[in-house]
Amino acid sequence: MISEKHIPTIETASPSEGVPAVRHSDQYTWEGVDIHPYKETGTHFKSIHRQTIFKGGDDLSVEFRYFEIAPGGHSTLERHQHTHLVMIIQGSGHVLVGDKVTEIGMHDVVRVGPLTWHQFRATKGEKLGFLCVVSTDRDKPQRPGPSEVEELNETPEVAEFIRV
Amino acid sequence: MISEKHIPTIETASPSEGVPAVRHSDQYTWEGVDIHPYKETGTHFKSIHRQTIFKGGDDLSVEFRYFEIAPGGHSTLERHQHTHLVMIIQGSGHVLVGDKVTEIGMHDVVRVGPLTWHQFRATKGEKLGFLCVVSTDRDKPQRPGPSEVEELNETPEVAEFIRV
Repeated sequence: MISEKHIPTIETASPSEGVPAVRHSDQYTWEGVDIHPYKETGTHFKSIHRQTIFKGGDDLSVEFRYFEIAPGGHSTLERHQHTHLVMIIQGSGHVLVGDKVTEIGMHDVVRVGPLTWHQFRATKGEKLGFLCVVSTDRDKPQRPGPSEVEELNETPEVAEFIRV
Repeated sequence: MISEKHIPTIETASPSEGVPAVRHSDQYTWEGVDIHPYKETGTHFKSIHRQTIFKGGDDLSVEFRYFEIAPGGHSTLERHQHTHLVMIIQGSGHVLVGDKVTEIGMHDVVRVGPLTWHQFRATKGEKLGFLCVVSTDRDKPQRPGPSEVEELNETPEVAEFIRV
C-alpha cells in the first residue's frame, strides 16, 4: 500500500518546482529541452546550436548547456570574466584556450578561465558536442578588436586557427 | 616567429595557477587525476570509485567529479542540503530521487535537490558512470535513521530498491 506520507522530494524541499529529477536523453536531445540557435545574429560563428538542459537553483547557481558544432563549424572567438567548465560528449575537434590550440575528443575536459580567448572548432570531419557548465550570473562575452586580433595573430598556430 | 608577448591565459588572468586548460581522457580516466575510493569507510556503498576532474575557482565554485559503479554496485543512500547535477556518461542503471526510482542511461541528466534522498545503482549488468557537479562549499551527507528507513519503505518500489 502506498502511503499518503511522503519523504522530502524536489517538489517539497526545493524552490525549483516543476523541474523533473531526471531528463532522459535521446541522441543528444533531452526531454522538454528546446534546441536554439547559438546566438541571435552574427557571422562570427558557424553551424552551431545550443540546448539548456538544466538551470541551476538552490545552492548550485550554474547551468548545464549542450553545444553541438557540425563538421567545419565553430563557436565565436571570445572572452569573458566568467569561467567555463566543458566536457566533450560527442565527436572531436580542436579548441583554442589562451594561446594554445589543442586537439580534443571524447570526455576531454576543458577549463576556460577569466578573460581567456577561446574558440571551439569541429575540425575533424565530425560533429563536436560538449556539455558546458557556467554560472547562472555571468558577464557578456567580448569579441576581439583589431589590435587584439593582431596580438592573437602573433602566434602562428593561433593565426592559422582562429575564425573571426 | 613567436612573440614574447602573450594574450591573457589561464596562468596570467586567473588565480588557478598550474591548472591545465585541457585534461585529456582515456577510457574514463583523466590526465593527472587520481582514482580514489568512494568514501574512506563504510558498508553502505558497494563497488564504486571516484575521480575529481576539476575543482572550481574564480566565479565558478563547483567541482567536476566522475563516479563509476561496477555492475551490481551502488552509492550510499543519503541526502544533504547541497544540490547535485549529474550526467550519465557510461552504461546504465537506476536512480532513486525522492520517492521515485527511474531507469537511467547515456546522457540522461539527474538533478538531486536539497534534502532529497538519492541512491545510484548499477542494476543492469553493466557499469554506471556519471559526471557529478556540486558546489565546492557543501554540507556533509546524512544517512537515514531507522524511522527514515521505515518511511522510505512505505513506498514498495522504494523499499525494493534501496540498499542501506
